[in-house]
Amino acid sequence: MTWADDVAFDERGLVTVIAQDAASRRVLMVAWANREALLETAATGQAVYYSRSRARLWRKGEESGHRQRIKELRLDCDGDVVLYVVEQAGGIACHTGRESCFFRSLDGDSWRTVDPVLKDPELIYRK
Amino acid sequence: MTWADDVAFDERGLVTVIAQDAASRRVLMVAWANREALLETAATGQAVYYSRSRARLWRKGEESGHRQRIKELRLDCDGDVVLYVVEQAGGIACHTGRESCFFRSLDGDSWRTVDPVLKDPELIYRK
Repeated sequence: MTWADDVAFDERGLVTVIAQDAASRRVLMVAWANREALLETAATGQAVYYSRSRARLWRKGEESGHRQRIKELRLDCDGDVVLYVVEQAGGIACHTGRESCFFRSLDGDSWRTVDPVLKDPELIYRK
Repeated sequence: MTWADDVAFDERGLVTVIAQDAASRRVLMVAWANREALLETAATGQAVYYSRSRARLWRKGEESGHRQRIKELRLDCDGDVVLYVVEQAGGIACHTGRESCFFRSLDGDSWRTVDPVLKDPELIYRK
């Protein structure tokens, strides 16, 4: 019996993960983790997710350099969402070059982009 | 064409919703919304979700009184998660009587409950 047994993985073996910045308290992103991703996250102190599109572990920052150092892991009351509280390298979590993926705010009848691009994605993902 | 058309509902017509407290910045809870729930949330300024277990709209606080007044709605980059930034009535979002559903923190090999019960759930849900 381990802490990972308390996590209510879905039928695909996945759990929803929210990353929140420890300093700004912004909700940065939402992704998935499987059991292996959670165990590696806890063991290494670096945020690891499961990429459904690539069907493999996704070590956040492996391409962008925008790693997430874990400050705390939290679990919700029904066990099906994990919260990663992180220090966000570069202050950028989103692939668009913004701090947070939640950069659109509802303004009347439309979503308005309200957060700046901090770094051009072409520069982030240049090989 | 309306803002709700920009939301990437899943095959069940649902989208993940995160509620965050506008003041404490705590992540309070995660639930689901359908299109109708989002539209009512935006129109009324009160958080509405879709309860899968009850298969109907869930106007947060309808039983507990712990309503959520909407301060802002945000949408993430791929459109499949909506963030409700809220004022939480009573300072309690969780059915356990705690501020947040994320009241368990990983401590070594186990989850430890680190947040206090602010109100006995039997008093919250007494008819």
